[in-house]
Amino acid sequence: MSAQQAQEKVDNGVNVQALLGAREALTEAPAAARFTWRATCNWINGTHSETSVRGFYGLGEEQSHRTEFHFDTDHPEIFASEDHGATPVEVVLAGLAGCLTAGIAAVAQNRNIQLRSVKATLEGGMDLQGILGIDSDVRNGFDGIKVHYEIDADASKEDIAALVAQSQKRSAVYDIITNPTDVTVTVA
Amino acid sequence: MSAQQAQEKVDNGVNVQALLGAREALTEAPAAARFTWRATCNWINGTHSETSVRGFYGLGEEQSHRTEFHFDTDHPEIFASEDHGATPVEVVLAGLAGCLTAGIAAVAQNRNIQLRSVKATLEGGMDLQGILGIDSDVRNGFDGIKVHYEIDADASKEDIAALVAQSQKRSAVYDIITNPTDVTVTVA
Repeated sequence: MSAQQAQEKVDNGVNVQALLGAREALTEAPAAARFTWRATCNWINGTHSETSVRGFYGLGEEQSHRTEFHFDTDHPEIFASEDHGATPVEVVLAGLAGCLTAGIAAVAQNRNIQLRSVKATLEGGMDLQGILGIDSDVRNGFDGIKVHYEIDADASKEDIAALVAQSQKRSAVYDIITNPTDVTVTVA
Repeated sequence: MSAQQAQEKVDNGVNVQALLGAREALTEAPAAARFTWRATCNWINGTHSETSVRGFYGLGEEQSHRTEFHFDTDHPEIFASEDHGATPVEVVLAGLAGCLTAGIAAVAQNRNIQLRSVKATLEGGMDLQGILGIDSDVRNGFDGIKVHYEIDADASKEDIAALVAQSQKRSAVYDIITNPTDVTVTVA
């Protein structure tokens, strides 16, 4: 079986040709690579709020998701809240998981590796003495995040590890979390 | 009207007494302040995956949300994907919005300020030359995030600005994004 035949048989649902085409097009026209992602959040009650995502800017013009996506965030009942949604820090874990996992699928497709299943378990430790203002030496956020992958794929253990490493190297959310990202907050 | 009467009239849905009680209890027993937040992600197809959140650890024992929360993440159609969910970076914006907004409600309650409405609009700029590997000098993540609040509350403009500033100071997600957070990725 030729490499070409093997490549045709691998299908992780990622259109790598389109991505390679996009890379080529954006190399020629880098201004189109400028994206702006947006979200709108409305406070509901207590610690419960709802965030919506639909429009974004990229490829030189306004774009839109097919539908609007909604995210409820809240605090759990042990914090005297009503638990109408995941906590905001769990939502960040979901963003990290989704980013690394999409990367694994895309890199696998590009490397001609058929994925059968990919599962990630994530955990982030946090000492609440930070956000409660008990100890100013304790940070508010996670003291670290652990992501563990179980991957079933037509590839060696080494090739699977290399997939995951390449996904980290190109992950937007991994970069946002591991490196400082400026956040400017203003009030009308 | 006494300060006590004014305080009784302010209701943002946040049980500040319980939070102050928790702070006191955790000051006495700091080990209970160690939390672990978790998420589990399953790859569906292409860049689409689904993350679930339910159990977490804190107050010295296993805890659980009332229900399991689910997050679909995907890439939009302009990236040759099927747009089954928000992009992972938009999910991060949702986490940041939810964290800062919950903080505003809690701080307002503690400061005796009645909120009527709180709306945040967020945007994060990104140059896709990073994640596409076109220019290694361009980062993968956001080059910055802007959060803009419109708040209607029984308070002066200055007091509202101070609310937002205090929320930033105690926000877990703001800390996770603005400061480096270690992420360790392993594969079975």
